[in-house]
Amino acid sequence: MSEYFFGVDFGGTNTKLGILTEQGEIIARRSIPSEVEKGPIALVDRIAEAYQDLLAENRLESRLVCAAGVGSPGPLSVAEGMIIKSCNIPGFGNFRFRAELSRRLGIGVVFDNDANVACWGEFWLGAGKEIKHMVLFTLGTGIGGGIIYDGELIHGSDDNGAELGHMIIQPDGRRCNCGQHGCLEAYASANNTALRAIEALDQGRDSTLQAVRRKNGTLTCKDVFDHARAGDELANETVDGTACALGQACVNMRHITEPQQVVLTGGMIASGDILLPRVRSFYEKMIWTNKPEPMDICLAKLGNDAGIIGAAGLALHSYRQNRLSAVGC
Amino acid sequence: MSEYFFGVDFGGTNTKLGILTEQGEIIARRSIPSEVEKGPIALVDRIAEAYQDLLAENRLESRLVCAAGVGSPGPLSVAEGMIIKSCNIPGFGNFRFRAELSRRLGIGVVFDNDANVACWGEFWLGAGKEIKHMVLFTLGTGIGGGIIYDGELIHGSDDNGAELGHMIIQPDGRRCNCGQHGCLEAYASANNTALRAIEALDQGRDSTLQAVRRKNGTLTCKDVFDHARAGDELANETVDGTACALGQACVNMRHITEPQQVVLTGGMIASGDILLPRVRSFYEKMIWTNKPEPMDICLAKLGNDAGIIGAAGLALHSYRQNRLSAVGC
Repeated sequence: MSEYFFGVDFGGTNTKLGILTEQGEIIARRSIPSEVEKGPIALVDRIAEAYQDLLAENRLESRLVCAAGVGSPGPLSVAEGMIIKSCNIPGFGNFRFRAELSRRLGIGVVFDNDANVACWGEFWLGAGKEIKHMVLFTLGTGIGGGIIYDGELIHGSDDNGAELGHMIIQPDGRRCNCGQHGCLEAYASANNTALRAIEALDQGRDSTLQAVRRKNGTLTCKDVFDHARAGDELANETVDGTACALGQACVNMRHITEPQQVVLTGGMIASGDILLPRVRSFYEKMIWTNKPEPMDICLAKLGNDAGIIGAAGLALHSYRQNRLSAVGC
Repeated sequence: MSEYFFGVDFGGTNTKLGILTEQGEIIARRSIPSEVEKGPIALVDRIAEAYQDLLAENRLESRLVCAAGVGSPGPLSVAEGMIIKSCNIPGFGNFRFRAELSRRLGIGVVFDNDANVACWGEFWLGAGKEIKHMVLFTLGTGIGGGIIYDGELIHGSDDNGAELGHMIIQPDGRRCNCGQHGCLEAYASANNTALRAIEALDQGRDSTLQAVRRKNGTLTCKDVFDHARAGDELANETVDGTACALGQACVNMRHITEPQQVVLTGGMIASGDILLPRVRSFYEKMIWTNKPEPMDICLAKLGNDAGIIGAAGLALHSYRQNRLSAVGC
């Protein structure tokens, strides 16, 4: 008899839900608005309600669903199953998300941060399917990270390891939103890629991006990649800056946990056709020659489903390893 | 009945040997010249001979010694139990050190790189005794590293992870011996600390170090620390450069494997009285303020015995976990 797993991808705007087979096939899915302003109790109530609907609509007996997984924005405590106080979603800090959801669903729940969950999804069924040591960078507004070491996620001593966007790659470098200077994120995130182009325009650099900025009042990361593709020099320099920062981060990770593969995911990989070959090329230029260090740098394969697939997959993994907390804990 | 473990700390000049109890007490020890020019077979023969002598002198029955551990310069393959071809010791590349030694001793042998072994020693009985997640930097001519994650060494996919000295902390920075640019080692090793002071003198900087250099023809790292202690401005700036690079590396490791503790070891910690407070201070200045990230940065406790203690301790750990290869493999 098949076993099923419930995956929850909690985001500030929408929360995606999916019921998956143990092979990772999504047999039912739904997206609900998170309406975080109504508070966390209302959200877990609505997730539980949607779960019951999905079961009913697909004539699935609830006893066949073994466990659930939740991917959530951090910082959070995996051990306590909750987002910690300093989070960006008012009202959700210190709310016992895992226990409250588990009580409503009647099954064990595993709770982890969204980048780790996406990393697990790619590791289980996506780009990292055949390997044991992987690193993932989520390239969006900010930069998140995930590390798989010998088939397990690296959480760190306080569940906030693998914050790869906040590796300092340039001492006294660009200020990051986190308060540090010179973070990878301060160079290579979508926001900072656009911002570096804007700053260059402000310094009087000539570029086809000037017209876009005049028209729209600002620039997006996509604008920069599109103009790089069309041959604009400043846009290409800006993309090189992003790729170079990521190449350096890849070298560093190779020397630290030594992954076989680095997977890039997030909104920016829509421009992966230009970004990926350049990250690879900077990695190869920067890595030592002491010994060969070939490393597969590639794009994620699961797209927007990585969250629910990873969450359900992490539930399956924790269930199989007998690591789930008791129902309601 | 007590069980004993044999630790071997193989270095380019000398090889230190010790027989330890399972509690980590060194009950017999010896140092033999490595005489690497005579080749690896001669060395393992002499290690086995010294082992028999140590047993005899201490009236220890060989059947009470359960396993042996070897710490060796890298790069090496833990899986194959040998130094790989590109090593710095002619004749030792691709020699099956573990198998040959194991055959001679008649016990299982674990083989790992010297920084990992020192890291295991400090984790087992030194600075990291009470913790589960640790990082170690060996500060000598070069910079090595070790990572303990959840009570186990991180080896990486190809046994050459935790090469923390080759984390790039400054893009297009100082050239490193490894061929990369901007490595931690290129700023913070003993050699490079001295070299940065020499370069500043060459640029005409005034300093009490000038006289030392004139007298000795060069400067050592110890000179720089001694003159910093005495208040020389250039020496203090140079030490700050070393501490700042290490502080940045500590921030990065905190965001990657999130250790509870970073341990500094190697020859440079003879100047730990000046270095340690400055590394701590740079870490605190550089780390984000998103959430508190207190981390214990401290000096190693085992001194020159870390190698034999770590090697014997790793043998004990592998023996208890049933991870040792069969005798002679």
